[in-house]
Amino acid sequence: MLGNCFTNVRKSSPLVHNITNYVTVNDVANAILATGASPIMSDEPKDVEDITSICGALNINIGTLNERSIKAMHIAAKKASSLGHVLVLDPVGAGASALRTDTAAALLDEVPFTLVRGNASELKALSMGSHTTKGVDADEADAVSEENLDKMVSFVKEFAKAAGCVVAMTGAIDLVADERTCYVIRNGRKEMSRITGTGCQLSGISAAFEAANPGNALEAAAAAVCTMGLAGEIAFSRMQPGDGNSTYRNRIIDAIYNMDAKTLDEGAKYEIR
Amino acid sequence: MLGNCFTNVRKSSPLVHNITNYVTVNDVANAILATGASPIMSDEPKDVEDITSICGALNINIGTLNERSIKAMHIAAKKASSLGHVLVLDPVGAGASALRTDTAAALLDEVPFTLVRGNASELKALSMGSHTTKGVDADEADAVSEENLDKMVSFVKEFAKAAGCVVAMTGAIDLVADERTCYVIRNGRKEMSRITGTGCQLSGISAAFEAANPGNALEAAAAAVCTMGLAGEIAFSRMQPGDGNSTYRNRIIDAIYNMDAKTLDEGAKYEIR
Amino acid sequence: MLGNCFTNVRKSSPLVHNITNYVTVNDVANAILATGASPIMSDEPKDVEDITSICGALNINIGTLNERSIKAMHIAAKKASSLGHVLVLDPVGAGASALRTDTAAALLDEVPFTLVRGNASELKALSMGSHTTKGVDADEADAVSEENLDKMVSFVKEFAKAAGCVVAMTGAIDLVADERTCYVIRNGRKEMSRITGTGCQLSGISAAFEAANPGNALEAAAAAVCTMGLAGEIAFSRMQPGDGNSTYRNRIIDAIYNMDAKTLDEGAKYEIR
Repeated sequence: MLGNCFTNVRKSSPLVHNITNYVTVNDVANAILATGASPIMSDEPKDVEDITSICGALNINIGTLNERSIKAMHIAAKKASSLGHVLVLDPVGAGASALRTDTAAALLDEVPFTLVRGNASELKALSMGSHTTKGVDADEADAVSEENLDKMVSFVKEFAKAAGCVVAMTGAIDLVADERTCYVIRNGRKEMSRITGTGCQLSGISAAFEAANPGNALEAAAAAVCTMGLAGEIAFSRMQPGDGNSTYRNRIIDAIYNMDAKTLDEGAKYEIR
Repeated sequence: MLGNCFTNVRKSSPLVHNITNYVTVNDVANAILATGASPIMSDEPKDVEDITSICGALNINIGTLNERSIKAMHIAAKKASSLGHVLVLDPVGAGASALRTDTAAALLDEVPFTLVRGNASELKALSMGSHTTKGVDADEADAVSEENLDKMVSFVKEFAKAAGCVVAMTGAIDLVADERTCYVIRNGRKEMSRITGTGCQLSGISAAFEAANPGNALEAAAAAVCTMGLAGEIAFSRMQPGDGNSTYRNRIIDAIYNMDAKTLDEGAKYEIR
Repeated sequence: MLGNCFTNVRKSSPLVHNITNYVTVNDVANAILATGASPIMSDEPKDVEDITSICGALNINIGTLNERSIKAMHIAAKKASSLGHVLVLDPVGAGASALRTDTAAALLDEVPFTLVRGNASELKALSMGSHTTKGVDADEADAVSEENLDKMVSFVKEFAKAAGCVVAMTGAIDLVADERTCYVIRNGRKEMSRITGTGCQLSGISAAFEAANPGNALEAAAAAVCTMGLAGEIAFSRMQPGDGNSTYRNRIIDAIYNMDAKTLDEGAKYEIR
């Protein structure tokens, strides 16, 4: 049950090392804290080996990457991998620039990740080397819909097989898959896309879910995705007239903070394909 | 009409590349999303040409600049200029350090900007090479008042003429001018100065307004300034006992999110000189 | 009286130069603004001498340090020291990595600080060269409790004597001491530890309190610690069902914004040992 995965985060309170962009880093930290886990951030090559060694998971997010942080990503990834830690990759903007596509691809080549979480455009860019991403948001032409669902489920499973890890492709419909099984998740609200960083937050909390649920990577990722989407629904139900995307941002993190296993199990909307 | 400029942002949803400081970057992103546009951040020299190419506007904010980001500013500015994109400069702290004054001046020399937005002290420093700025806030001695209004309108028009672009000098009274025409805007509240980054947010959304209103740079800038000020007024009217600058920050972005052309046209308080 | 120290911040509105981590920097800026002081951030070696020269205090926080920012910390510290400015050190994650422990130790060796503020694990690491910190949070084994209070008061006084400055060790019980006198402070709530950056905010506002209260470093630090803890209590009393750590974060800064001398004097809970 997904609720179990959530309870394990609360119980084990894993420490997550994040190398992540400076746009949404504060929300990533508070979202991780809201799950009951703890975040630590470090992107200096001389600092990351020590920091990642005391953690249980490494979350690499390539938004606002730079030469120094890319170096730190590789050093930290190798160290975390050698220690058997959870590794999560968020390929922000893959497809939007050669540097981003290449950095994400190089990391995937170098170490075995536990989970890759991105939007449809980013994952397609990584899969096909294409460059059609509209910045850090998914191109509408790439979006998962009821019409192309079968095709997209197959794509995500194939990506997972090729990458040798769980893949979460998030958007209006979220697909979380390994090579055999795909969770098709219909939680969340479209208004979440008008907040910066809900994807980054999801990657951060996913790392906590993975660390707290060893040997159960697929279900842990599905639980993280449902938690984020359900938090978006709960938060939206609390919106008052005059509230907008900034208040919505706060209420989503609040809803993660107040989440529990029962609420998650009752509110998770998914089918397995 | 200013409301029209706002509607154009909502309709065209421009993508804005921001090279901006890490203090207020999250609020800049959420403010841009609140207008209906989309932000992307990148400050790595090897990344910015690709990123700026897929955007319609480049917003350069020199707060927390460093050697790497300065290099990225120049590369991105040249690329954006060669593509005919909108360019906005926010000279945060010009006058407070030689590096900031020189960086802003060098960028202004190098490429034609669409809009420069700063406070009175920053613009005076750029104009005169003086170093009297009180950090990132305007020096009181520099502020626009009813007493010195004529003189300041002339100063802003002259600055606009010399820089060959629209200039927005914001403070208690906002002046938005090209070499011939000046909007004197009396929206906003003094409490906005107790929030970090309302100026940075304004520069970010101004880039979206400019991108969505080609050939109409002056009115677009005035619309952005009125939107921010009016959002500050609407947000303040929603404040409850015990609320302070952090909640006020959220409510201002919320108010941009809920803005529409009619509200803006009815609430904009300006005269043209 | 502590309330007096607070009033002095409101009256003198000091400008605080912060070299601080990008995780919590926005909250640090808004917390400083909430006290009535003003923040400026700069971490470029070529920028920091000019910036720190126009300020009254320098707050160095080593979270997300990198080679460039470390260089900037040393340059800024020497300049601020030569000008007789207040210097505050927040050794975030000291003990968690060699780079962080060494950087904090080197800064302490190099210039006389006014105040060092950290959690028990960080201060123990600095004192003993140990590496037992659980990331950026205090290890439970290190926490101040009623049982080990006498021992911890002695430890903090000895640290203060060795460092030649005021030391604030914050946690469930806060200890603020010079070599002779220790404030034992029981303000605050445990839920504050589920927000990222309350410690960073405290270091930032402490720099403002120190700058506004020259020659009164111990009382100024105690006033800052009580202000933060009391703001945490006031903010918690305003929490509604469904609110969580993100809203709590906003309400704490709001409570600092609405603080006054009388509220602080009535709400401060401390004894002197």
